[in-house]
Amino acid sequence: MRLVDQTVLPQQLKFNHYSDWKKVVAAIKNMVVRGAPAIGCTAGLGMVLGARSLHAADKDELLRGMEKIATTFKDARPTAVNLEWAVDRILNVMKRAEGPVSAIQQAALQEALKMLDEDIATNRELGRHGSQLLSDGAKVLTHCNAGALACVAFGTALGVIRAAIEEGKEIEVLADETRPRLQGMKLTAWELQQDNIPVKIIADNMAATLMRQGKVDCIVVGADRIAANGDTANKIGTYSVAVLAKHHGIPFYVAAPFSTVDMSKVDGTSIPIEEREHSELTHVSSRLISPVGVPVLNYAFDVTPHELITALITEKGVIYPPFAENLKEQAN
Amino acid sequence: MRLVDQTVLPQQLKFNHYSDWKKVVAAIKNMVVRGAPAIGCTAGLGMVLGARSLHAADKDELLRGMEKIATTFKDARPTAVNLEWAVDRILNVMKRAEGPVSAIQQAALQEALKMLDEDIATNRELGRHGSQLLSDGAKVLTHCNAGALACVAFGTALGVIRAAIEEGKEIEVLADETRPRLQGMKLTAWELQQDNIPVKIIADNMAATLMRQGKVDCIVVGADRIAANGDTANKIGTYSVAVLAKHHGIPFYVAAPFSTVDMSKVDGTSIPIEEREHSELTHVSSRLISPVGVPVLNYAFDVTPHELITALITEKGVIYPPFAENLKEQAN
Repeated sequence: MRLVDQTVLPQQLKFNHYSDWKKVVAAIKNMVVRGAPAIGCTAGLGMVLGARSLHAADKDELLRGMEKIATTFKDARPTAVNLEWAVDRILNVMKRAEGPVSAIQQAALQEALKMLDEDIATNRELGRHGSQLLSDGAKVLTHCNAGALACVAFGTALGVIRAAIEEGKEIEVLADETRPRLQGMKLTAWELQQDNIPVKIIADNMAATLMRQGKVDCIVVGADRIAANGDTANKIGTYSVAVLAKHHGIPFYVAAPFSTVDMSKVDGTSIPIEEREHSELTHVSSRLISPVGVPVLNYAFDVTPHELITALITEKGVIYPPFAENLKEQAN
Repeated sequence: MRLVDQTVLPQQLKFNHYSDWKKVVAAIKNMVVRGAPAIGCTAGLGMVLGARSLHAADKDELLRGMEKIATTFKDARPTAVNLEWAVDRILNVMKRAEGPVSAIQQAALQEALKMLDEDIATNRELGRHGSQLLSDGAKVLTHCNAGALACVAFGTALGVIRAAIEEGKEIEVLADETRPRLQGMKLTAWELQQDNIPVKIIADNMAATLMRQGKVDCIVVGADRIAANGDTANKIGTYSVAVLAKHHGIPFYVAAPFSTVDMSKVDGTSIPIEEREHSELTHVSSRLISPVGVPVLNYAFDVTPHELITALITEKGVIYPPFAENLKEQAN
C-alpha cells in the first residue's frame, strides 16, 4: 500500500509504503493522508492489512480480531464520517463472506479495491453534476483541499472545477491558504498547478475583501460529515467563508460523495469536532513562531448550518433545500 | 532614536538604534516598527534626524530639503494616515518657527517629543472612554496588534482592554493570529502575556466558530485611517471579522486617536490599500512553505464599511452612528 506523504508537499513528492496496519492508523492520525474520502479508502485498505496480520484460525477468530482493528481505525480521527463508513463496509463484507479465512481476507481486499474505483466514479459523477453550477469565466473560491489528494483521484470540490474545465469552461480558482496546516496553499494550489488550472493563493482573512470587490462568483468546498438536515462539518474556516458568502450574496456549494451524509445525526450539533495539537498553530516547519506559554485554541473543523448552504453536490445530483426532506428522499 | 525590532518578536526583544533618517524610512517600510500611531511618532522623530542631516545654511534651504524628506517618509507606507499627519505636523512647525536653523531643528524636536507624550495621553483617554463598553468578565476578540507596540505605550484597542482591567474588570482576550505577518500571535499575545492579561491565540478562520459558540462578547480593533463617513481601513482581515460580528449580533468597536480620522476622504473607497511582497505569505521565517510559482494576492489592509461598526472609540469620547455627522461635529 502506497500513500503520497501530504505532510511534505509541496516541497517534496514522496511516497510512503505500508504493510503494517498500525502504521496506516498513524498515517491517518498524523495526516500523511487526509481528506474525508481519502481517509475512508486508506482505512479500507488498512483493514485488509489488519486482516492479514491476524493469522486467524477461523472466521470467528478473524472477526473478533477485526472488531478491535476497526475500532482503532475509527478512533484515528473523529470528524469525517467516511472513516467509520469505510471501516464498517469492510467489516460487513467480511461478516457476510463464506469459506476459509483466506477467502474472507480476499473478499475484504476486493471490497477495498471496489471502494477506490467507486471513489473515482463518484467524483466524476458529482463533478459532472456540479459543473453545471459554474459558468464560463467563473472565479471560484475553495477552502482547504477537497481535491485529488483528498480522494483517490479527481477530487470533490476540485472535481467540480476539473469537470467544468473539461467541458471547455474557463475557471479561475482562489485557494484560501487554510490555517493552521495550510492545505489550501500546500495541496490545493500544488495540485491545480500540476494540472495547469489557474489558481491564486490568499490568506484566509482576505476572502471577505475579494468577495466585496466582486472577485468571487461562487464557493465550492468539500465536507467531512453532512447531518440529515444539511448541516455540514468541514475544515475549520469553512463556516467563516459561508457567513461571508451569505453577506455578499454569493452561492456556497458543498461537494461530497453521498457516503458523507450521516442520517444518524439529526443536525450538526452532535457531529464530533476534533481538536488537534497546539503546535499546528505555534510552529511552522517545526520552528516556533508563537510566544512561549500563550494558550492556543485549535479546532480542526467547524459546522456550517444548512441555512448558509446553497446546494449540496453529490453523485446522485445537486441537492437543494429543504435538505432534511431532499436528503431523506435520496437516502432511501 | 531607539525602536523595538518588531520583526524578531516574540523570540527576541531587540532594540535598534537610529541616527540616519533614511534607515528610519527603511524601518517603517520593513515593519521593524508598525502600527499607525507608532509609525506616525517614528516618522516625527525621523524628520528631526532628517533636519539635522541637512546642514542647511538658512531656513529656506532647510525647508526645501525637508520637503523631499517629508515625501520620502509619506511614501514609506500608504494606508495609515498617521504617517502623513505626523510628517506634516513637523513640517508645519518648522515653517512657523523663527530664528536660526538650529532653533528650527530644536522646534521640530520639541514637536516630535510632544507627539510621543500626546500619544500616551490620547491612548489613556480613549482607553478610559472605551472601557465603559466592556463589561466585567467580557471576552474580547482583537485582530492584529493595536497595542503598546503599535503606539508609544498603552495602545488603542489594547489600551481599552488595559483600562478596563485597571478599573478592576476581568477581561479575557482572544487574539486572531493575523496572517500573513502574524502580528496577533507574535505581538498582541506577547505584549498581553508581559502584562499577565489572559489571552488565547486562534487562527483567523476560527473566529466565526467562537462567535457562534457565544465565546466572543465584543470586538475591539485599531485603525489605520478612518474616512469622514466612518469607513475604516485597518489590517487585512478586519473587514472579515466585522461581517462575522454583524452576522452574530456582536458589537464591533474601532479604537483610534482622532488623528486617524481623515476628513478629506469622503468614504473608504479612496483610501489607498497597500499591497505587500508575496513572500509575506509564501515564506515563514525565510523558509518557503508554498508551491514555487503559484501566484499570491497580498493586500495588507481592507476597508470596513461604517454600517458594520458599532462605535468609534477616540480620545474625544465614544462616537456612535451616524458617523458622517458625528465625526464632523468632533472635527470642528
